[in-house]
Amino acid sequence: LLQPPKGAVLAVATDTLVEGVHFMKGLPPSPLGWKALAVNLSDLAAMGAEPAFALLNLTLPDGRASVVDEFMRGFEALAQSHRVALVGGDTTQGPLAVTVTVIGYVPKGEALRREGARIGDDLWVTGTLGDAAGALALWRGGTPMLRTGGLRERMDRPIPRVGAGRVLRGIAHCCIDVSDGLLADLGHLLDAAGLGADLDAGALPASSALVGAFPAREQRLPLQLTGGDDYELLFTAHPRQRAEIERALAAVATPVTRIGSIVPGSVVRLLDDGGNELPVPPRAGWEHFRGTSA
Amino acid sequence: LLQPPKGAVLAVATDTLVEGVHFMKGLPPSPLGWKALAVNLSDLAAMGAEPAFALLNLTLPDGRASVVDEFMRGFEALAQSHRVALVGGDTTQGPLAVTVTVIGYVPKGEALRREGARIGDDLWVTGTLGDAAGALALWRGGTPMLRTGGLRERMDRPIPRVGAGRVLRGIAHCCIDVSDGLLADLGHLLDAAGLGADLDAGALPASSALVGAFPAREQRLPLQLTGGDDYELLFTAHPRQRAEIERALAAVATPVTRIGSIVPGSVVRLLDDGGNELPVPPRAGWEHFRGTSA
Repeated sequence: LLQPPKGAVLAVATDTLVEGVHFMKGLPPSPLGWKALAVNLSDLAAMGAEPAFALLNLTLPDGRASVVDEFMRGFEALAQSHRVALVGGDTTQGPLAVTVTVIGYVPKGEALRREGARIGDDLWVTGTLGDAAGALALWRGGTPMLRTGGLRERMDRPIPRVGAGRVLRGIAHCCIDVSDGLLADLGHLLDAAGLGADLDAGALPASSALVGAFPAREQRLPLQLTGGDDYELLFTAHPRQRAEIERALAAVATPVTRIGSIVPGSVVRLLDDGGNELPVPPRAGWEHFRGTSA
Repeated sequence: LLQPPKGAVLAVATDTLVEGVHFMKGLPPSPLGWKALAVNLSDLAAMGAEPAFALLNLTLPDGRASVVDEFMRGFEALAQSHRVALVGGDTTQGPLAVTVTVIGYVPKGEALRREGARIGDDLWVTGTLGDAAGALALWRGGTPMLRTGGLRERMDRPIPRVGAGRVLRGIAHCCIDVSDGLLADLGHLLDAAGLGADLDAGALPASSALVGAFPAREQRLPLQLTGGDDYELLFTAHPRQRAEIERALAAVATPVTRIGSIVPGSVVRLLDDGGNELPVPPRAGWEHFRGTSA
């Protein structure tokens, strides 16, 4: 029984992860526990909501009950860092799957939404793009997962941008988290507004781990544009807010990069440093791990 | 983004149903949709909460997407009758399973809880007991499910006692819903209070369908005591509230029966009409459908 703060509205998010579909068979339980919560906190972050409570439904095959403790270690580590209380759920027998539901609060009228991009808005993204996709690409190319280093860490233990979502209230015109890939999630913002975007290919932020593993930009670009599993916030804001955005996100220790702008039309153009159009890969969403195992 | 009513606290419930574990392979999607919501509304009812919102996570095997429409028909039929809004969720690929999460409200300080039974309290139960277990027993004995009539309807489309939970606020000392079987759920109330109970075997309410299928009381009794999947409310109250309880539950068209009383100790005694003790079956919970198919 949970007491909502005065003047708050509820924000809720829920997500199911199925073994072999959303995560690889053989993923250790601790990162799974972390990630199952992280993807939902990322959804709340994109609404500018403060997470408060979580519910956990864990379905485990017979004889796998031993994984619960380790699963909970990963789950609790992230829950505690955001003061999220686990208030309900169940454990059932069946094929390995986990559903997490989170409930958070946002002051009435201040929630961030997908709708609201305007012509001339800057397009921004937090953090870096393509790390999780890079880990997966290395692994599909034969690199053992253990040797994908920081890239794999990004895939297994994404950091939900909760603080960033909070400080963007009242600044961002619209916001979404990048879970299906930059182009796919940008598409959601643009569809909601009936607008297009110009993306600055040279501005797309990459981690040093990604640059190290994929030194050529033409290797990195598809990972950053369509990879998914980034859990960064993608948002638009008026150009006069640039200094305010950099200040606000620095205050919550979140890197942020301006990667383009909102334009009339319904098309995404990808531009190189000279302003020439580059081919845009299909904005297909994240492929997941369907039918594979580590 | 959901606005809570003033002075309300949130009540939440969540439950995962897995094919072959919690429901039979071959259960049509429409009753599954109903039941997945019903079991959660029943949890809210036991708190005296008014349901408001639901989240639905549906995991479907490849090629089963066609069941979604029919599933939603069952889900929506029950949701509409309680004015529950579906506000989120996802559909994922994987072994058939469904997780429903419901959010409701209850005025602050008025929620029903499992704790609170007192010595001398009457023990009450709504509706009838043992129908779902009766359907399962018939079917295990070779009766086609289609010929178990009203019993099967109780198993497939349980009616959550939402109205009853609401009117029991301020009257019941404690409350739980009977999902694991009368003895198992009574055990939860007694454990929470550190008390025992005398059960009146002759008072346990049975539907006419159950009496028709199992004319001998010694056949019915184990179904009523340990069967589970009843989704009736089990509660205790002071004996001076008898008339008030009958009036309040009649007002929400819910049958209610006094089936015993709370006593010191920690034991459940089952008494026949002459006050003689009958053997009490082990209070094992509901067996579910593990490894079976219709």
